[in-house]
Amino acid sequence: MLVNGSKYQSIWRNTHGNVEIIDQRWLPHEFSIQGLSSAYDAMVAIRDMWVRGAPLIGVTAAYGMALAMQENYSNGNLIDAGKLLNSARPTAVNLSWAVKKIQDFLIETEPKRRPEIAMLLADQMADDDIKTNLLIGKNGAKIIQNIAESKPHGEPVRILTHCNAGWLATVDRGTATAPIYEAHEQGIPIEVWVDETRPRNQGASLTTWELLHNDIPHTLIVDNAGGHLMQHGFVDLCLVGSDRTTATGDVCNKIGTYLKALAARDNNVPFYVALPTSTIDTKLGDGVNEIPIEFRPVEEVTHIIGRDSKNILTKVKLVPDDVSALNPAFDVTPRHLVTALITEEGIKAH
Amino acid sequence: MLVNGSKYQSIWRNTHGNVEIIDQRWLPHEFSIQGLSSAYDAMVAIRDMWVRGAPLIGVTAAYGMALAMQENYSNGNLIDAGKLLNSARPTAVNLSWAVKKIQDFLIETEPKRRPEIAMLLADQMADDDIKTNLLIGKNGAKIIQNIAESKPHGEPVRILTHCNAGWLATVDRGTATAPIYEAHEQGIPIEVWVDETRPRNQGASLTTWELLHNDIPHTLIVDNAGGHLMQHGFVDLCLVGSDRTTATGDVCNKIGTYLKALAARDNNVPFYVALPTSTIDTKLGDGVNEIPIEFRPVEEVTHIIGRDSKNILTKVKLVPDDVSALNPAFDVTPRHLVTALITEEGIKAH
Repeated sequence: MLVNGSKYQSIWRNTHGNVEIIDQRWLPHEFSIQGLSSAYDAMVAIRDMWVRGAPLIGVTAAYGMALAMQENYSNGNLIDAGKLLNSARPTAVNLSWAVKKIQDFLIETEPKRRPEIAMLLADQMADDDIKTNLLIGKNGAKIIQNIAESKPHGEPVRILTHCNAGWLATVDRGTATAPIYEAHEQGIPIEVWVDETRPRNQGASLTTWELLHNDIPHTLIVDNAGGHLMQHGFVDLCLVGSDRTTATGDVCNKIGTYLKALAARDNNVPFYVALPTSTIDTKLGDGVNEIPIEFRPVEEVTHIIGRDSKNILTKVKLVPDDVSALNPAFDVTPRHLVTALITEEGIKAH
Repeated sequence: MLVNGSKYQSIWRNTHGNVEIIDQRWLPHEFSIQGLSSAYDAMVAIRDMWVRGAPLIGVTAAYGMALAMQENYSNGNLIDAGKLLNSARPTAVNLSWAVKKIQDFLIETEPKRRPEIAMLLADQMADDDIKTNLLIGKNGAKIIQNIAESKPHGEPVRILTHCNAGWLATVDRGTATAPIYEAHEQGIPIEVWVDETRPRNQGASLTTWELLHNDIPHTLIVDNAGGHLMQHGFVDLCLVGSDRTTATGDVCNKIGTYLKALAARDNNVPFYVALPTSTIDTKLGDGVNEIPIEFRPVEEVTHIIGRDSKNILTKVKLVPDDVSALNPAFDVTPRHLVTALITEEGIKAH
C-alpha cells in the first residue's frame, strides 16, 4: 500500500536480494527500514515487535529460516533455527506453520541447495500472502457493498476495527483492512472507527497511519468507546483480524476484541473476522481453554512512547512507582459472537 | 483516607476557613494542594478536572456557591453563580443538584447572612457525603463478605473496578471504593483489578495511587483486559460508580463501563454499582436515550502526560499528525446488566 505516495510492502527483498522490513516500533513517528541478516535478526524482529501481525510474523519467520540456511544449511541448524524462531512469540499459529513448512520442504532437499530454495519458498509465502489478502478483500467488500445498498445512497458504511490487522500486519493489503481497501477502491463510501488498542496502541499508531496514507476516512477512539457508539447506531459492522482460529470458529485476536464482540451482539451489529485460512489451527476445538495467551512485559502498560513538544520521541511513565500490573496480549472471542469468518476461500458462518 | 500516612479529604476548609482541594491533575506524579477563592475558581476546578467524580463535583459546586455569596450575596448573583457552575460539566447530576439545593435554601435567607450560611451548607454537604459513603461501604462490604465465605478460607475476593470512584471522586471513602476500604478494614482478604480507564487514565493515575497509599493489594490492567480475566474466572465481582442513575436503574458511568458489564453478564460475574442516592435522577427513565453524554477534547485521546526518564512531567503525542478523533466521556449501562445498586439506603436490585 502507499506510504507518502509510494508503494511499499512490510517485508521484501531489495535489489541486492537482501531481506528488508519496515521497523514498525517507531511508527507513526518515524518511518524506518531495517535489513535482516540472520535467523537471530528475524527472531529479534518478531520477539521485539519490529514486525507484528500473524501473517507477517509467519513470512518473517520463513525469511529467518532462509537466512539460517545461508549461515549453516545442516539438518541440525534446520531444527535449531526453527526452535529459535518459534520461541519468539507464542500465540500466532502462523509462526510455527511457516517454520514447519520450510523445514518439511528442506529436509527432503539437498543441503547445499537449501539456502537458495528456502529464500524462494519465503518469497513464495510472501506472494501467497498478498494473493490471499486480495481474495479476503474481494470477499469482504461484498459484505460492505450489501450494507451500503441498505443505506441511503452515498451514506458511508461505518466500520469499527480493533488493533492493526492492516497491511502492516501482513505483507500487503492486510486482513481486516483488505475489504476496507477493496471497498474504497470500488468507490463504496466508508468510514473507519479505529480503536487505539491499548497497551501497544497499534490502532492509534499503525491503523491511523495506514489509513491516512491511503486516504481512507477514519476517526480514532479509545477502546472504551465502541460500546457507546454501537448503542447509538454509529457502527454498521465490526471487522477485525485473528491471530489463531479454532476449527470450530473461536477467534483469538488482540486483547479487547471479545469486549467489542459482546457489544456488537448486544446491539445487533454484525461482527466479522477476516483471516487467511493459515491462521486456522485445526487441532483446536475450544479457543478459550486451549489457545495459549501471551503475557507481555508490564512496561507496555505502565509506560508509553510519544513525541514531546520538540518532536523528540520520549518514553513516559503513566503510573505511581511500585504499581503492579498484568499484560495479557490476546483474548478469545467465542464462535457464537462471530457473524462469519471472511477468508480467501469465501465467507464461513459457524 | 491516607496519603503518605496522613489523613486527607479531597476538599476541606483549612484552619483559616479557606476552601482547599487536592489538584488531581498531577496525580500520581505530584501531590498538589490548591486554594479556591471564588465561584470562578470552583468552576475552573470542575471544568478542567482539578477535581472530578460526581459527588466531589457536587460538593465543590456547593463551596463555589458559598464563595460566590462572599463576592456578592444578591439574588442576581445567586442565579448567575448557579449558571456559571452548572456550565462546567454536563453529565453529573450532582452538580445541578448541589447548586439547586444551595439556591433553594438561600433564596429564603436574609441576603447578608448568605455567605456564612452557604459555607455551613457546603460543610454539611461534605460531611453528608462522607457519612453516605461510610454507609455505602458497610452495605457493600456485606456483599464482599458473602463472596469471601463462598471461597476457600483466606482466598482473596477479586474485585474489578473501572475509572476512579474512589475517595478522590468524593470527599472521602469513595463510592465504589467504600466497600473495598470497609472490607479491608474488616480483615476480608481482597484484591483489586484496576482498569487504567482511557483516555484520562483515572484508574492508572488515581485508583492505583489511592490503593497504594491505603495498602490495598491491586493490579493495574488495560481496559481491554477485563473480559479475558472474567472468561478465565479471575474476577469475583465488578464494582463501579455512577455519575447519573435513572429512576429505572440505568447507570451512566465512565466510558467503557458498559463493555465490562456485558462481559460480566456473559461470564456470570456479579456487576454492582455503588452510588449515593443523590446521583439518581428521578426524572429519567431511559438512560441510553435521555442522559446527555459529554464529549471532551480529543487531545485527551491523542496526547498523554507522564514522567520522562528524568522524572519531569512531559506531554507526548501518541498519533500521526492530522488524525481525527472522538472522545465521548461516559456511557450508559442498561439496568438489565446491573446485579444491584449499592446505596447508603441499602442494596437495590431492579
